Amino acid sequence: MAGPLISLLSDFGLRDPSAAIMRGVVLGIASDARIVDISHEVRKFAIRDGALLLWCAVPYLPVGFHVAVVDPGVGTARLPVAIATGRGDVLVGPDNGLLVAAARTLDGIVAVHELRDPRFRLPVVSTSFHGRDVFAPAAAHLAMGVPIGDLGPAVDPATLVESPIRDPVVSDRQLDSSVVYVDTFGNVKLAGLRVELETALGPLRAGDRLVLDLDELGRRRRIETTWQTTFGDVAAGETLVYEDSYRRICLAAREADAAAKHAIVDDLEVRIRRG
Amino acid sequence: MAGPLISLLSDFGLRDPSAAIMRGVVLGIASDARIVDISHEVRKFAIRDGALLLWCAVPYLPVGFHVAVVDPGVGTARLPVAIATGRGDVLVGPDNGLLVAAARTLDGIVAVHELRDPRFRLPVVSTSFHGRDVFAPAAAHLAMGVPIGDLGPAVDPATLVESPIRDPVVSDRQLDSSVVYVDTFGNVKLAGLRVELETALGPLRAGDRLVLDLDELGRRRRIETTWQTTFGDVAAGETLVYEDSYRRICLAAREADAAAKHAIVDDLEVRIRRG
Amino acid sequence: MAGPLISLLSDFGLRDPSAAIMRGVVLGIASDARIVDISHEVRKFAIRDGALLLWCAVPYLPVGFHVAVVDPGVGTARLPVAIATGRGDVLVGPDNGLLVAAARTLDGIVAVHELRDPRFRLPVVSTSFHGRDVFAPAAAHLAMGVPIGDLGPAVDPATLVESPIRDPVVSDRQLDSSVVYVDTFGNVKLAGLRVELETALGPLRAGDRLVLDLDELGRRRRIETTWQTTFGDVAAGETLVYEDSYRRICLAAREADAAAKHAIVDDLEVRIRRG
Repeated sequence: MAGPLISLLSDFGLRDPSAAIMRGVVLGIASDARIVDISHEVRKFAIRDGALLLWCAVPYLPVGFHVAVVDPGVGTARLPVAIATGRGDVLVGPDNGLLVAAARTLDGIVAVHELRDPRFRLPVVSTSFHGRDVFAPAAAHLAMGVPIGDLGPAVDPATLVESPIRDPVVSDRQLDSSVVYVDTFGNVKLAGLRVELETALGPLRAGDRLVLDLDELGRRRRIETTWQTTFGDVAAGETLVYEDSYRRICLAAREADAAAKHAIVDDLEVRIRRG
Repeated sequence: MAGPLISLLSDFGLRDPSAAIMRGVVLGIASDARIVDISHEVRKFAIRDGALLLWCAVPYLPVGFHVAVVDPGVGTARLPVAIATGRGDVLVGPDNGLLVAAARTLDGIVAVHELRDPRFRLPVVSTSFHGRDVFAPAAAHLAMGVPIGDLGPAVDPATLVESPIRDPVVSDRQLDSSVVYVDTFGNVKLAGLRVELETALGPLRAGDRLVLDLDELGRRRRIETTWQTTFGDVAAGETLVYEDSYRRICLAAREADAAAKHAIVDDLEVRIRRG
Repeated sequence: MAGPLISLLSDFGLRDPSAAIMRGVVLGIASDARIVDISHEVRKFAIRDGALLLWCAVPYLPVGFHVAVVDPGVGTARLPVAIATGRGDVLVGPDNGLLVAAARTLDGIVAVHELRDPRFRLPVVSTSFHGRDVFAPAAAHLAMGVPIGDLGPAVDPATLVESPIRDPVVSDRQLDSSVVYVDTFGNVKLAGLRVELETALGPLRAGDRLVLDLDELGRRRRIETTWQTTFGDVAAGETLVYEDSYRRICLAAREADAAAKHAIVDDLEVRIRRG
């Protein structure tokens, strides 16, 4: 009875009208769609940030049609695609690595099609706003029941551009990780899940001492901290490493900005060992 | 016929996916909910800011279920609660003072229950994201008709953490107030309503002269200004005190940022007298 | 079957509750309205920015009721109005130039009425928040079927305050333009459409050389660049002029912030010639 679920993610920014225009285009085609904005404040051109936010969000959304646009290559030859997933969702956006991690977490990639048929685009396709002209219309038509195969030719999933979210390297007694996202609290998301850290270091218990060796283009620094279950286990301002609510390894500080405190930058290499 | 109204307020920030995830969780349980985001840009950990924004907003929303999450104590012993109000709304969030002023303005607190029953939480409850795992599901289940008493044991309203929004002290010919919120225009909301200022100073008319003595940790300053009905009554850039659209005393400047102009900070003590 | 479409635009900012309160007021009157937020992050008091964003957005929204509030004159004598358009939309907001360009792009202004009848306002009208007390209620009542003529007396369209979006001056071999908006990417929107530039310079082809003479209060600068079809046609960081997705002339830089690169400010005069 409720309308189809369409989510939107972009780096368009909420000051500009682009995000609203995508909503308008969706509602012009699928008038009863329920639209959820995941984020339109993704850092400009940061495909990995967008990929990570999408990976975080989609498992908690109802099955639906997810449009994601962080697209520095708009107007070039990069492919516009729709990716059907095992859970029943379809992800729509550019083939630049933005969609694949989210697709895999929705029970994997089932089919990929290029968005080519002009019936499912706006009549005029600009060179700079495919979110409006190509991606939002495709998702809305899919939500109205158009089969994914009607959008365009099948694409071999193996040819999709790989996810920019790095994996950690698990070794004996150390995990080689890196900074993959700094959130608005200054919490630092690292490559890898808790399970991977425990594969390297063995089972972790609250209070276990950890050493993080940071390598910033050859400049080395060290953070000595502890593994904790929750922020409340340390004093205000104190640093900790914990499993965030997506099971990811995260460097944080209680009621404080860990990224600022430790001058963390994106892509920083982080080796984690026991202290 | 229209679906239930669920509002959301948090300090999660609109760049991160947390706000969208709460919407997704709500729609997964109450598929036809009408969701209104009050704000997700509340200053990090600022319970009073959140409390004030909630107090401003809820009287203008339809009767519904209002989730508020500014929760520096997440993962500690602070209680997750639902507060039923005289108007028929239910407020859902942490018991840290965030909800009570809003509840009182909705015709008062009728009942309070702890959110304890796991049937109305997500299957896995993280230590850091109760907005997703505890609060949003509770509100959505309430919206679907679950009685508040099913969520968990009753809590004595008298034991709730008090609101952090300070009251002014009304004396003869002066009001001792303080800065409780600075809005995005730089308008400075003060503790107290117009009615309280008039109790102290007598009836106020446009143009009445006022003196504000500011005490910033012992450093004293004075602003000489006037009471006005509206911005239009002074020249561009000029300071005024007026009754804001929530009946609250507000220091402002026409088409300008009063907080910047007068170097106002949160909690600043402000004594108001006639000039 | 789907509810009426109501869009909202303001300079209220997403941290403050004002935008949500307008949504709440709309839903209290038109419970099944589909609400699209165009932007609430318009630069404070910047009527032209709001006018341009509205002009960009409304052609891509379904026919509906569009509330826009960038209103430095709130509480003064400026008229609150509803503007019916040829496409069937109604624009609601202050008569300060904010609405007219958008109205014209929706097939022109058909009728204008003052918002005067207190039945279609909130019971108490504040001096500082007409978005809540006057504009949102008017749009919601219109969406519920109230005829525009019931809102108040007809206003002669010729008396409306003119749009602040400047037109370019087309001459032989040059276009005198100016900066009308800088978007969140740092793309610089100029007065005039591609068609106007081609009227001045003749047909434009990718790679054509252009000279932009900038006059900033008498300080003159020159940018030598090229006309391009899309960002992908130049190297990363390189400047170009292109037709943006609204057919407007735009100065940009590939994956970079052209406004920062060239120290562009609002209203800067820009004369465009062939290079």
